[in-house]
Amino acid sequence: MATINNNYLKLKAGYLFPEIARRVNAFAEANPTAPVIKLGIGDVTEPLPEACRQAMIQAVEDMGDRTRFKGYGPEQGYGWLRENIAIHDFQARGCDIDASEIFISDGSKCDCGNILDIFGDTNTIAVTDPVYPVYVDTNVMAGHTGDANDQGEYDGLVYLPISAANQFTAEIPSQPVDLIYLCFPNNPTGAVASRDHLKAWVDYARAHGSIIFFDAAYEAFITDPAIPHSIYEIEGARDCAIEFRSFSKNAGFTGTRCALTVVPKSLKAKAADGSEVQVWALWNRRQATKFNGVSYIVQRGADAVYSEAGKAQVKELIAFYMENAHIIREQLTAAGFTVYGGVNAPYIWLKTPHDLSSWDFFDKLLQTCNVVGTPGSGFGAAGEGYFRISAFNSRANVEEAMRRITEKFTV
Amino acid sequence: MATINNNYLKLKAGYLFPEIARRVNAFAEANPTAPVIKLGIGDVTEPLPEACRQAMIQAVEDMGDRTRFKGYGPEQGYGWLRENIAIHDFQARGCDIDASEIFISDGSKCDCGNILDIFGDTNTIAVTDPVYPVYVDTNVMAGHTGDANDQGEYDGLVYLPISAANQFTAEIPSQPVDLIYLCFPNNPTGAVASRDHLKAWVDYARAHGSIIFFDAAYEAFITDPAIPHSIYEIEGARDCAIEFRSFSKNAGFTGTRCALTVVPKSLKAKAADGSEVQVWALWNRRQATKFNGVSYIVQRGADAVYSEAGKAQVKELIAFYMENAHIIREQLTAAGFTVYGGVNAPYIWLKTPHDLSSWDFFDKLLQTCNVVGTPGSGFGAAGEGYFRISAFNSRANVEEAMRRITEKFTV
Repeated sequence: MATINNNYLKLKAGYLFPEIARRVNAFAEANPTAPVIKLGIGDVTEPLPEACRQAMIQAVEDMGDRTRFKGYGPEQGYGWLRENIAIHDFQARGCDIDASEIFISDGSKCDCGNILDIFGDTNTIAVTDPVYPVYVDTNVMAGHTGDANDQGEYDGLVYLPISAANQFTAEIPSQPVDLIYLCFPNNPTGAVASRDHLKAWVDYARAHGSIIFFDAAYEAFITDPAIPHSIYEIEGARDCAIEFRSFSKNAGFTGTRCALTVVPKSLKAKAADGSEVQVWALWNRRQATKFNGVSYIVQRGADAVYSEAGKAQVKELIAFYMENAHIIREQLTAAGFTVYGGVNAPYIWLKTPHDLSSWDFFDKLLQTCNVVGTPGSGFGAAGEGYFRISAFNSRANVEEAMRRITEKFTV
Repeated sequence: MATINNNYLKLKAGYLFPEIARRVNAFAEANPTAPVIKLGIGDVTEPLPEACRQAMIQAVEDMGDRTRFKGYGPEQGYGWLRENIAIHDFQARGCDIDASEIFISDGSKCDCGNILDIFGDTNTIAVTDPVYPVYVDTNVMAGHTGDANDQGEYDGLVYLPISAANQFTAEIPSQPVDLIYLCFPNNPTGAVASRDHLKAWVDYARAHGSIIFFDAAYEAFITDPAIPHSIYEIEGARDCAIEFRSFSKNAGFTGTRCALTVVPKSLKAKAADGSEVQVWALWNRRQATKFNGVSYIVQRGADAVYSEAGKAQVKELIAFYMENAHIIREQLTAAGFTVYGGVNAPYIWLKTPHDLSSWDFFDKLLQTCNVVGTPGSGFGAAGEGYFRISAFNSRANVEEAMRRITEKFTV
């Protein structure tokens, strides 16, 4: 009889966001007139930039003309888009990244999971705690862990705690680890990494032959000019890092779907015979075999992000969400909450008051203020006692949510 | 040091289509004025149906309006699209398939590869020979095979030869196999499976607890009313089959990207402890964790395939390519070639004349007629001595290619 991948049975039943949806739905059923405001999931709410829409309409029209029709495109993405990304996102910041090292995909979530396909089963894997759950769950599925304990920590993973005590940036591990997930600006804590902090990671990775999976999905929200946007701003990172980027949060593509992964050609990893193999060639083969490229229409939309109009419109979008973040920070601070993040990231990470557990605070906030956030413990054991508020919503909703919290919630 | 997935090193260097592209480019460089006609890769050439384009333009406009804007959609696809597929593609043909059993994706190639994520490492896997190379390569990558021999056959896979002797439909294996890839209408041979043939497979699978991966990407090209379009037309298939479908070939979505996979809720496979696990739940978890749904815009385009206008336009597209197939069959037969397929499928599978090897015939056809096809041996050892001609091109190109072959090629 056909057998299953038993690693799936190690996964905890409820992925964080479905569990939130379940509780919100139950509350809404019991309180059908309650005006619930969702600041939970990190999903954008504002219209797509006009430049992107215009480019996509033009692309749809191309598809109606035999001479401009596009069938299968390159699995790695169209050259014009890869070129623009290389120039504007990397070379403009002094990063030595070539267009051929950029792989267009339909989502960073997919790439973060799929990247494990090309690595071995014996790597030691490090994640921060709290962390974006997909990093952990995809490693569980791939058989890189044992079972979870009561706190949801999987045997075999190296957890690097991040908290207020270390400014939400993990200490460099004392033991050797092979694959390291870093996310800056950080989801969920909103923390950023200084150049020195990233340099320490790159130095560590080069010394140990480790590879850093650098998730920069939120780089567009960085406001402090001293903070690196890409790990390739650090010398030597080409030899030890893969970077994930997305159009989801800068240009509002969560429902349009486009992302990219950078795999430098100089990055190597070890084969069983001890030889060193180019990681780029493996990822190129993986994508050519198991992926068929992103919709031509969507790639045209993403490309418009790099036009003059597109750049201005994206800047406006980011400013809009960051003003939301500013309002949330100010109001919560004034109300007596201890808050982090929200300056270089669209997430505010708050300490739950009165030592409430993350889920108890979730329930209380929902019931008292009809506001939905994300319990910190959903991101890992060390997230217990914290809570994430997202800046992705309309101004009116953000202001109304803050009014309710400051009026009704006693810290 | 980080280690790689060593299974990637077992892959043969050249995936079929890149090797074709290499030879065609070399020829074009040496003969810059040669008017090359490509009937190789199965890529569509005609404009997208107007109904799909109109729906996508409307969807892009939705994205410009805050109240109609779509952020993250369901990872499994929008309910309206899944409902339409269930009704029109399955229930209308008497298949007991519910919308919740349909998972929308960005490509059948992706799904065919990704489906292996949820199955165990110890399954015995059967493929036909010749076969779509992705089935084999993704199993190699997943570590389900040993090394390849000189004919490109991987140790550990069960190859089921298909040839003129068995009407290009594999014999039911005498040994137990756990996962079986079937593709009907067949790529590359253009063969179809009768109801009796599919019933024999379903009976076999149910008797052995095997699971059939049924690739129906070309079902829209079936012209014979007696031939099943879905494996779920066979009683009992809900308990033993997963079906892959695509909008690539019926509606011309190769560059637009939309497909679907059907996983019936009654399908079970065995866990290590001997218990039976619902496969649907595993795939649902896989998609929710490692995928983020298809672009809203593209799903709206796919949905328009089920409108009255969309249905008529798709029918016209299919008829156009099938008239190409008819012309190719007729002309090649008249020229003395032995041909198969092309009646219920957009592929014509021909016996190479004078016992030429598939690649020798490829080179000769390219040099003599400036026509590109696909060498049968690229699809597996048993494809040696065969050659695939695709019906996907303009009428003028198909007619010109056939004129050249009949005039210049002596069989």
